[in-house]
Amino acid sequence: MAALEARLARIAERNPRINAFLTIDVAGARAAAAQARPGGRARSPVDGMPIGIKANIAVAGWKFHAGIGAWRDRIAARDAACVARLRAGGAVLLGLLNMDEAALGDTTDNPHFGRTQNPREPGFTAGGSSGGAGAAVAAGFCEAAIGTDTLGSVRIPAAYCGLTGHKPPHGAISTEGVVPLAPRFDTVGIVARTPGVAAAVRNWLDAAPAAEVGGPVGLFPLDGTTTTDAMRDAVARMAEKAAHNGIAVQTMAPLDDDLHDIAKAAFLMVALSATEIYDAEVVRAPEGFSQAFRDAMAWARAQPDTRRKAAEEKLIWAAEAIRQAFAPYACVLMPTTPQPAFPFDAARPRDTADFTCLANIGGLAATCFPAGVNACMAVSVQAVGADEGACLALAGLLAG
Amino acid sequence: MAALEARLARIAERNPRINAFLTIDVAGARAAAAQARPGGRARSPVDGMPIGIKANIAVAGWKFHAGIGAWRDRIAARDAACVARLRAGGAVLLGLLNMDEAALGDTTDNPHFGRTQNPREPGFTAGGSSGGAGAAVAAGFCEAAIGTDTLGSVRIPAAYCGLTGHKPPHGAISTEGVVPLAPRFDTVGIVARTPGVAAAVRNWLDAAPAAEVGGPVGLFPLDGTTTTDAMRDAVARMAEKAAHNGIAVQTMAPLDDDLHDIAKAAFLMVALSATEIYDAEVVRAPEGFSQAFRDAMAWARAQPDTRRKAAEEKLIWAAEAIRQAFAPYACVLMPTTPQPAFPFDAARPRDTADFTCLANIGGLAATCFPAGVNACMAVSVQAVGADEGACLALAGLLAG
Repeated sequence: MAALEARLARIAERNPRINAFLTIDVAGARAAAAQARPGGRARSPVDGMPIGIKANIAVAGWKFHAGIGAWRDRIAARDAACVARLRAGGAVLLGLLNMDEAALGDTTDNPHFGRTQNPREPGFTAGGSSGGAGAAVAAGFCEAAIGTDTLGSVRIPAAYCGLTGHKPPHGAISTEGVVPLAPRFDTVGIVARTPGVAAAVRNWLDAAPAAEVGGPVGLFPLDGTTTTDAMRDAVARMAEKAAHNGIAVQTMAPLDDDLHDIAKAAFLMVALSATEIYDAEVVRAPEGFSQAFRDAMAWARAQPDTRRKAAEEKLIWAAEAIRQAFAPYACVLMPTTPQPAFPFDAARPRDTADFTCLANIGGLAATCFPAGVNACMAVSVQAVGADEGACLALAGLLAG
Repeated sequence: MAALEARLARIAERNPRINAFLTIDVAGARAAAAQARPGGRARSPVDGMPIGIKANIAVAGWKFHAGIGAWRDRIAARDAACVARLRAGGAVLLGLLNMDEAALGDTTDNPHFGRTQNPREPGFTAGGSSGGAGAAVAAGFCEAAIGTDTLGSVRIPAAYCGLTGHKPPHGAISTEGVVPLAPRFDTVGIVARTPGVAAAVRNWLDAAPAAEVGGPVGLFPLDGTTTTDAMRDAVARMAEKAAHNGIAVQTMAPLDDDLHDIAKAAFLMVALSATEIYDAEVVRAPEGFSQAFRDAMAWARAQPDTRRKAAEEKLIWAAEAIRQAFAPYACVLMPTTPQPAFPFDAARPRDTADFTCLANIGGLAATCFPAGVNACMAVSVQAVGADEGACLALAGLLAG
């Protein structure tokens, strides 16, 4: 209880400036904390753990708006499957986390609910679309947060905030009660203070493979990518650290396709999926969506059929190519993002999801972890592969 | 204006029993009719035409609930793209039509908004999911109605009500402002009194190919299907009539896969798509969905990954097989449904969409038309193929 009150005091003091939480369920959190760890014994790895929930995931009685103005007053009647599971394990559900409008973005600069600040430096983005999740954990408001990851939306904020971000393989965790964006890519994911916390939450949500690195680790080739020097250094340092720990590290062959071309095709398919999901709602309540969101929908709608088909074909081939290229390794090390967090008033990079989207396209697991600091901002590396346990285990070994 | 008042009087008298319209926009319809055909000249083929709109298509200021109880009070702020186009052409938008809950059904026995009766015989279904569209046109309430067709939802009610039902090729008509069910199959479609009316509405909605049968017509092989004798007779009579009109009719080779197996795979994919679209909403407002709908979602969710993958693979192959098998013909004649409309209290047939779903899976156009009557109920045949103009033209030639 004392620990919860300390968190609540910290939130009261710092959240108004950071804007990670949009609402705090003080009464619900206190009630859960009072019942946590009966007799001092944890009933689950999440018993008593303070956890925040992204606004596109249903928590009974909480707002459930997915960052969309039109849905500002929607209330969830029941818990999403993942939330019900956390609640059953005794987790202390703290409050609702800010996000990009409809999860379509990577800066959490929400036109309806405000901007979330990076706790490391005001004026810098915490990433997105689960930016509230990253900022809340980085600010010490909670131990972990549940987000969603369609092309990188859990890992990008985890990277920018110096945290662990974990995306399970596609389909491993139920998305029931989660507002869809692009179901073929959507996964529930975890932002956590450490890889250990991420693994504990993950293992409670659903049965997961053992956490061990059973095989060689691949090193993703960075020639021809837009990776900054800080990120190249970080990946190289992590590869060295892995080798130092007795793990075989092998540079893998490059993919045939340009990373950014793959990411662009994925973004088009996500935007097209968003039109299918939101067109009717935009027509019902146009003023409840930002002009930028409506412009993005109109752009997707206006793409010629030839371009849609080319993108679809590219993704089918990319999915197969990624799975084949990653298959020989327990997991593959690569940058999470090409650069660290950037200021809101800087030009917005277009390549932020170039590395993260590969796991979504291939249906693979990915765990990102902090690998040092550059110019005050965290640098982040991710372990990606079909073996979810290997990703988490390598992150646990290397995170620093 | 006199014509509209006659329609409104008929609706007032008969709709309470048929329950085709859920709401009537008397003021809006009168205003549109007053401005129709200025100086007696039609500005479009739909100028002054009374048209009903299915409840999953947005009409500004009307209810927009898709047959879902949870959305009972939702109002559309703007017109769907297809509705805006009709309005621009001077159509008289009469009211909102009943449908199956979330368009997932084929009987329009809606748990929240009541049952729609077949105007030919009380106690018989008008089909679904666009059952209100079929009943409204059959009862003479309107000249045409706009519905949606994911696996047959426009053509099944048109067939059961003795009308023309037209499904354009996938993507030909914008679905903006239409509540999605399974975007890969969803199309806006038309129920109309005659093929000519359907063609007029279709051509106004968007540019369409010329209506002519430019090539041989295929005859779909019915061996091994569940087609009733009444429907076999109807297809045979229509093939004869086509030949009598100088059109070459050739029996095509059967598809490798069993029709019902294909339909079952398609239904699973539609139900899975529905879970992606509705899971979050069911969690927000569970009491706003029927137990049957929630059971269907739970069933889809519970399907093992192997079954989902097998269904997906079957559909990919079926789409290619359908396109190849139909390609040599201007269009292909086949039953619309294996049997005519049935009573609500009879056992519900499971094969109703076995023939209609082929056009959705292959992305093809399809026009169904009445081909006589059997035991008081209409029998229906459809022309299916990539050439939308050929489908409409053959329907126009053969409908009787």
